[in-house]
Amino acid sequence: MVETTHLLLELFLIFAAAKVMGELFERLRQPAVIGEILAGVVLGPYVLAWVAPSQFTSGLAEIGVILLLFTVGLETKPRDLLQVGVLASSVATLGVVVPFITGWLVMRALGNSTLESVFTGTALVATSVGITARVMADMKILGTRVARVILAAAVIDDVLGMLLLAVVSSLSNGRTQIFSLTVVVLEAVAFIGLIVFWGSRVVGRMKPRLDTMAPHNSAFVLAMVACLGLSVAASFIGIAAIIGAFLAGLAIADHREAWAIEGKVQALGEFLVPFFFVVMGLQLNLKTLGDRRILGMALLIVVVAVLTKLIGCGLAALPMGPRDALRVGFGMVPRGEVGIIVALVGLQQGTISDAIYSVVLVMTVVTTLLSPLLLSFVFKGLSKDQASSPGAPSIGAKSL
Amino acid sequence: MVETTHLLLELFLIFAAAKVMGELFERLRQPAVIGEILAGVVLGPYVLAWVAPSQFTSGLAEIGVILLLFTVGLETKPRDLLQVGVLASSVATLGVVVPFITGWLVMRALGNSTLESVFTGTALVATSVGITARVMADMKILGTRVARVILAAAVIDDVLGMLLLAVVSSLSNGRTQIFSLTVVVLEAVAFIGLIVFWGSRVVGRMKPRLDTMAPHNSAFVLAMVACLGLSVAASFIGIAAIIGAFLAGLAIADHREAWAIEGKVQALGEFLVPFFFVVMGLQLNLKTLGDRRILGMALLIVVVAVLTKLIGCGLAALPMGPRDALRVGFGMVPRGEVGIIVALVGLQQGTISDAIYSVVLVMTVVTTLLSPLLLSFVFKGLSKDQASSPGAPSIGAKSL
Repeated sequence: MVETTHLLLELFLIFAAAKVMGELFERLRQPAVIGEILAGVVLGPYVLAWVAPSQFTSGLAEIGVILLLFTVGLETKPRDLLQVGVLASSVATLGVVVPFITGWLVMRALGNSTLESVFTGTALVATSVGITARVMADMKILGTRVARVILAAAVIDDVLGMLLLAVVSSLSNGRTQIFSLTVVVLEAVAFIGLIVFWGSRVVGRMKPRLDTMAPHNSAFVLAMVACLGLSVAASFIGIAAIIGAFLAGLAIADHREAWAIEGKVQALGEFLVPFFFVVMGLQLNLKTLGDRRILGMALLIVVVAVLTKLIGCGLAALPMGPRDALRVGFGMVPRGEVGIIVALVGLQQGTISDAIYSVVLVMTVVTTLLSPLLLSFVFKGLSKDQASSPGAPSIGAKSL
Repeated sequence: MVETTHLLLELFLIFAAAKVMGELFERLRQPAVIGEILAGVVLGPYVLAWVAPSQFTSGLAEIGVILLLFTVGLETKPRDLLQVGVLASSVATLGVVVPFITGWLVMRALGNSTLESVFTGTALVATSVGITARVMADMKILGTRVARVILAAAVIDDVLGMLLLAVVSSLSNGRTQIFSLTVVVLEAVAFIGLIVFWGSRVVGRMKPRLDTMAPHNSAFVLAMVACLGLSVAASFIGIAAIIGAFLAGLAIADHREAWAIEGKVQALGEFLVPFFFVVMGLQLNLKTLGDRRILGMALLIVVVAVLTKLIGCGLAALPMGPRDALRVGFGMVPRGEVGIIVALVGLQQGTISDAIYSVVLVMTVVTTLLSPLLLSFVFKGLSKDQASSPGAPSIGAKSL
């Protein structure tokens, strides 16, 4: 009973705080998502300490971000994504190479060991697309070319990041297993390729059979099974679960009128997505900001983190024109939890020190807090610049 | 990463198994909820052991049952509930007195101590309205008089059960605190009374102000805040959280056209309600069924549990006619987790033995597995017998 009361209290506090703070920030004409992240900071261990991160809160957060990317996938047709394939590939590649090498060289110049420097470079690589996806969904610009390039690049970025982490950790282990590495990457590429090229066709053939296969279940239920199933599959293969959820949405996108699931998915998102951003705030380790010894190195790495994605991805996106190239660059800046996971792997292997781990934490905290602000600024006017797909729903707000 | 993969896998298994088994049972013309409970049994520790009950699964289950009762509340207007108030009060009272005294006397006759007998009697009292609510929602009979009597009686039953447990545990403690007991009961009665009598009026005045108060948030968000908030409040006062959720729905029921939240709440329920029933199945301790020493006493108590609610509630409901009285009686039979909590209190106080605790567990397992079957049987034809409110949505199934 006490356990239940406690869980419900946390649930209530997280949801209510997210909506109140989101409302506040929207009134200040700022992205609601900043309000939600700050709600987590306020509820979390460094301010009020009313909610502690737990298996329950992180589970809800995971469901939230999966729903977010699933919704974003529903707004994105495979054809549109393939059309920007070449551009997105070069955005992703330069967005991996530039931060990795720059991070490595800067850390080496600061006197760190080669392995530590390489690990920090790796932690700078992986883009966490959650914040960007949310800001784009709220601004209703998912139908633009900029959004498509960012989303396609994020998928490729995730595979490259996984590959890089595997190589770097095997270097520090002293065991380079080229065969198993190749298998893992081929698995990931095959998984993504299959869904992007054939997913939509399979989904198209399913709907007519749905009524005879499972007359008592709805298209919504089937869609949720696909969303959860592909998230689990992606996670098993070694890429991010949210990439699986995005691909599930993508496969259904061409048939979303026939499936008629958008209203229901949106309702789920309106309830569950805020948990992701509040828990993101809960987990931000503000203590790292107080350690002056590492703050200097950390702020330098923050600058490196922002500039290298901006320059790497921006350069690759230059064919779109300077303004859109800047937007794509900023869209790839947020790092989120992926960098922390890389740093954690290094810490557990004994490759990097606590100080370097803290540097990565600070980098994550700062890019997480700044990104929504920067993004809403650079994306302003985007829907006027380009033809936006009509009726793209906002997630987590505005549906009175 | 591994932790996330694991959580997602459990999520996927629970949801997919619930829907597959639910589909199977609907095709066999049986309630989908049996399929969901059995899905939990199959996934659980005694069969496949693929999913272990955890803080995460029980948290999701709690959200699920809260949404279920909130939806049921939305279908129930306060006026309709008050109209059956006198009848429901006598149903609840006889439904508490008869099982308590019978359970006590039977256990005493079997040679148990007075305290153990009193505790077992108390464990037989509390109705767990989740299963009945779900079966009624799926059969679209929430608009009937039988459904109203059951729901109103369940609310009163919960308060009486709380009072009885408090008295019985203070007896075994040797500390009878009449003053604090009175305060607790008055709190509960005031909480329920305030919402039933004034909740609807408050909600009616809120809607016009909503647009100026929180222009960026939807009525749906406000409804979810109310649902979670009242669940937490109920839990703090000492009554079941689901009663708070039911009351929140009740307060909005008169204004559901203006608030237009039903589709969204239904979508949330379709995703989350199955978790409650699957986790119910996960947590059923089938081991207790294997212990022959206690199985005899347990089966006797199962018969007492079913018959006493049937007779107690049925007698009180006789003014409705014998057929509806039988329906009300069966509707109050499921015990669920409440009896286990009572037994656990007794176990922790050292008042009851492990054997008696197992007896209560068996009683819960058997009434949980049998109830949906019995209920769907006795409720058959109810919608024809009485005027059913049109458009009451089914929860968790059928919306293609």
